[in-house]
Amino acid sequence: MRRSKDDRALLEGPHLVAEALAAGIALEEVLVAPEFLAGRSEDDALRRGLAALPEPPLEVAAGLLDELGDADSPRGLLAVARLPRPGVEGLPRRPDGVYLFLERIQDPGNLGAIARAAEAAGAAGLALSPETAHPNHPRALRGSAGSLLRLPVAVGVDPDSLDRHLTAGRDGLEVHWTALLPRGGTSLWRAALEGTLVLAVGSEGQGLSAGILRRAGLGITIPLAPPVESLNAAVAAALVLFEIRRRADGPAPPRRLGG
Amino acid sequence: MRRSKDDRALLEGPHLVAEALAAGIALEEVLVAPEFLAGRSEDDALRRGLAALPEPPLEVAAGLLDELGDADSPRGLLAVARLPRPGVEGLPRRPDGVYLFLERIQDPGNLGAIARAAEAAGAAGLALSPETAHPNHPRALRGSAGSLLRLPVAVGVDPDSLDRHLTAGRDGLEVHWTALLPRGGTSLWRAALEGTLVLAVGSEGQGLSAGILRRAGLGITIPLAPPVESLNAAVAAALVLFEIRRRADGPAPPRRLGG
Repeated sequence: MRRSKDDRALLEGPHLVAEALAAGIALEEVLVAPEFLAGRSEDDALRRGLAALPEPPLEVAAGLLDELGDADSPRGLLAVARLPRPGVEGLPRRPDGVYLFLERIQDPGNLGAIARAAEAAGAAGLALSPETAHPNHPRALRGSAGSLLRLPVAVGVDPDSLDRHLTAGRDGLEVHWTALLPRGGTSLWRAALEGTLVLAVGSEGQGLSAGILRRAGLGITIPLAPPVESLNAAVAAALVLFEIRRRADGPAPPRRLGG
Repeated sequence: MRRSKDDRALLEGPHLVAEALAAGIALEEVLVAPEFLAGRSEDDALRRGLAALPEPPLEVAAGLLDELGDADSPRGLLAVARLPRPGVEGLPRRPDGVYLFLERIQDPGNLGAIARAAEAAGAAGLALSPETAHPNHPRALRGSAGSLLRLPVAVGVDPDSLDRHLTAGRDGLEVHWTALLPRGGTSLWRAALEGTLVLAVGSEGQGLSAGILRRAGLGITIPLAPPVESLNAAVAAALVLFEIRRRADGPAPPRRLGG
């Protein structure tokens, strides 16, 4: 099936379709297998939601759904959604917001996993460099478990425009560009991570470009036990985002009292 | 190609084969494409290592390697390694060691990612329940980026035998079973994570079994921003393991001084 490269996205399986309905995203086509319509009671609410659509879902054989989908098994339900992706203007300006700038993250599954962790950690949005995977790629959407349907995501972003966008109308605001480095940066546990922050994450193979490294006022590194030299980009991004979240959440843990 | 279900493992690509040589793992067969032998100078050390093997590598066409391998592209090099996986007796007894108990983690890629994060965070080893993916699965090995070649991993482990193994000969030692829960547990930021600790992680779909939940003296949950309800198992496990590592590493971060 043609990959969605524009403003349409293929949503595969009951989970993603339910998340799209809950997020108020317009579904343009819904294909459903008889097995899904007669299926598990936990899908009742979703079936009612589909029945209430302006256009009723189209019933097709499960085997045809498998052919149309990208997943191993779309579990009886596929939908095409209108999901336009704006440029940098699509990002909210949030005081002390944490933004991710993803540079050349080409694996859609990795993009999805990063989006999921970013939403879970309360990030303000994702800015994707031109060479990064498209957020409407079916594998990105599945890997995000719905986060790419909700989190603000801007595509084709260059760093200057992101800076201009975040500081527009906010005199004196400084954007803290922070580069996630496999080695040589300040330890994540000791790094200052405050204010309006853009965390730049590159691909495991290529790392960040020289332009981003020059722009970053701070490079941070996750301390790793040798001989491990790097982490998967999604795990690394999640560790930084949740470290920021942890500091915002409050005090140090108590000592264990007994067993 | 037949999946390694026993004590043999298929290593695909120069990175994994180099990691195996560095770890002193016996290679039983090495298949190499002419393109690899004539290839990038950064692989020179690996080529010398292969030339020094008791049995010289077998040259085969790159297209045949692609057929034999599980990866999209084994990049000109495949090896079969002897990699027997012991039961619980294969785990070291480390004072204050952190062990993972993985229950029904069926996706080999997830197992590999967890192993990579576990080694990077300094975990003592992995104990795999009988229904968990095999650590010699090609996708697990690739996803681990070599960690499954080095980290102690025990297969077919039941919780009682793990307890007995870790406490054998250490009178009064208590093993702190800690369950990672999608909701309802103590916040990770506030949880006591000390002593000899077994972190139990279940699959995203099924969670942990009742037997493990009864055994756990502590349930912990990673605070998530709504509406996110869960994280990928590898990201979740990494967040807990690195929180333990962070506390071991030292003091709180400084305030940001200037830009």
